[in-house]
Amino acid sequence: MKKFIFISFLATGLSYGLEYNEDDLYLQAKGLFAPLPENFSISENPITPEKVYLGKLLFFERRLSINNMVSCSTCHAIEYYYSSPASKQMGALKLQPRNAPTVLNSAGQFVQHWIGNRKDVEDQAFQSLTGPAAFGNSNLNTVEEKLRKIQDYVDLFKKAFPNDPEPIKAENIAKAIGAFERTLLTPSRFDDYLKGNKKALSKEEKIGLQTFINVGCASCHNGTLVGGNSYQKFGILEPYWKYTKSESIDNGRFEITKNETDKYVFKVPSLRNVTQTSPYFHDGSVDSLEEAIWIMGKVQLGKDLSKKEIQYILKFLKTLTGDIPKDAMQPPILPASN
Amino acid sequence: MKKFIFISFLATGLSYGLEYNEDDLYLQAKGLFAPLPENFSISENPITPEKVYLGKLLFFERRLSINNMVSCSTCHAIEYYYSSPASKQMGALKLQPRNAPTVLNSAGQFVQHWIGNRKDVEDQAFQSLTGPAAFGNSNLNTVEEKLRKIQDYVDLFKKAFPNDPEPIKAENIAKAIGAFERTLLTPSRFDDYLKGNKKALSKEEKIGLQTFINVGCASCHNGTLVGGNSYQKFGILEPYWKYTKSESIDNGRFEITKNETDKYVFKVPSLRNVTQTSPYFHDGSVDSLEEAIWIMGKVQLGKDLSKKEIQYILKFLKTLTGDIPKDAMQPPILPASN
Repeated sequence: MKKFIFISFLATGLSYGLEYNEDDLYLQAKGLFAPLPENFSISENPITPEKVYLGKLLFFERRLSINNMVSCSTCHAIEYYYSSPASKQMGALKLQPRNAPTVLNSAGQFVQHWIGNRKDVEDQAFQSLTGPAAFGNSNLNTVEEKLRKIQDYVDLFKKAFPNDPEPIKAENIAKAIGAFERTLLTPSRFDDYLKGNKKALSKEEKIGLQTFINVGCASCHNGTLVGGNSYQKFGILEPYWKYTKSESIDNGRFEITKNETDKYVFKVPSLRNVTQTSPYFHDGSVDSLEEAIWIMGKVQLGKDLSKKEIQYILKFLKTLTGDIPKDAMQPPILPASN
Repeated sequence: MKKFIFISFLATGLSYGLEYNEDDLYLQAKGLFAPLPENFSISENPITPEKVYLGKLLFFERRLSINNMVSCSTCHAIEYYYSSPASKQMGALKLQPRNAPTVLNSAGQFVQHWIGNRKDVEDQAFQSLTGPAAFGNSNLNTVEEKLRKIQDYVDLFKKAFPNDPEPIKAENIAKAIGAFERTLLTPSRFDDYLKGNKKALSKEEKIGLQTFINVGCASCHNGTLVGGNSYQKFGILEPYWKYTKSESIDNGRFEITKNETDKYVFKVPSLRNVTQTSPYFHDGSVDSLEEAIWIMGKVQLGKDLSKKEIQYILKFLKTLTGDIPKDAMQPPILPASN
């Protein structure tokens, strides 16, 4: 038996039916999304406590950069849910080409970076060592040698990579950082809901979820991360830069593939913790999440979403904001140079 | 009755008498140094929980800077005992002219900045808002307006400055940050010793303290902060750049006063937590603390300190490394832009 819940509003001009069926909605949600797993461990880089401990130190370690100025946490700061409030953050030698997304849950994405030019979090960390917009080392040896001079790191790499005759090397830096990132998951109330606790979301949040599905957001933003599992052209119906405050046009994946069909194609970002990671889009050109939702409706779905619809979608998105693991709320004190 | 403790070493070629008298040393130490107070509150900016709470948020708030890239914590990172491992850290628009010292205990200094061109921590914070090597705002209004758009800050400033009709303004940003910094004190084992617990330091650390006093370090590095209470020429006996790895010559306070006698004059830095705040000197030109100690002996005291002396001084300096207040070990999650 279906039980319909009708929410009546005094609000004026509702363009959208604010109703949902409890069981239908749950089935739809279960079909479209999935709760977060325990971690994002992979067989090529198993998670061990020693590796995660070291990886956390290295994540905050500015001495990985050529001028000791920049660490992973420069673009991915605890204070901003492991992201940055800058449209584009400065790296060691060069401005980042795109907005820094949160690394929370990011290990679960099908590829890394906005245009998918990093295979996984280990590849991302590895290439950051020499990328001028990241750590800017002219070669891997520079950074390896720097760490080899710090006794604490000599000991910690040995513990994290006990079978490796040369533990301090770029591959292991990347593996340790990757292992740490593979533990940065933020289960939220939406996970409770997906796991069967239908009371985990309020009525308004469920209307938001139903709206999110009905208007079409979930056709791209789906799966475990509510995104992060496919590419999509940004601006299917109209050019994105007509509505964003973009300062220049970014060709997206075309930059790598040179296929005309990849023009303006980007990875669909995960929406987990999206309320905490302003500014939005690949170029961080929009500060307000409400505005970002409206723009997405306009250029991806050809819909002029009403204020009401946007408010409900926003209510749903807030249920995707999870808890940062306790240990990741506090940075480590790093080994002294002496 | 005096009780002499003689430490006998098999070590070769001791150029320095490794002995001390327990009571004499304690009296000397009490005359030269003082334990940290509870906080560094001043009547012009009394410490209140509301102000400190807000000040902590603002200390980590990159949105204080013109491009959202830089916060106080960029130069003063928890991971490095509220300092930076870069010789000179990048500000929002420009490289810092000098090495970023720790802000731990810094509110207790007689002036701020290496050349004393900031009166106190509030003045330092205030001037950072518009300084290009700090936050780079073209005027104060830019940053004030930005904060006024974030509802959480509207509420928090009202609470912190309840009698101010316009709570969000640059003066109050500076006062809140200042209030937070006035709580960042790190009592160490040396404070326990100064308060009367003579067992707080080991024999070797006491030899180090006696050496520190005898060779002359304490003639400048004294008081509550073991420094931070006077100016001194860097390179009394020989030019400092003869021994440091300085890339250029810094005229020091001469830059402000234009007095020939202020050439190469800098504030004597506090040595609290010095083991954690490499690199050293106003230009961050020396990484190793042992090397920094040797250089100081050479150019300030005309002494070629032996390895043994340096090791003992180092042991004493380690007793100045204190505990960061628990609440200051963890950054805040900052208000969302939405």
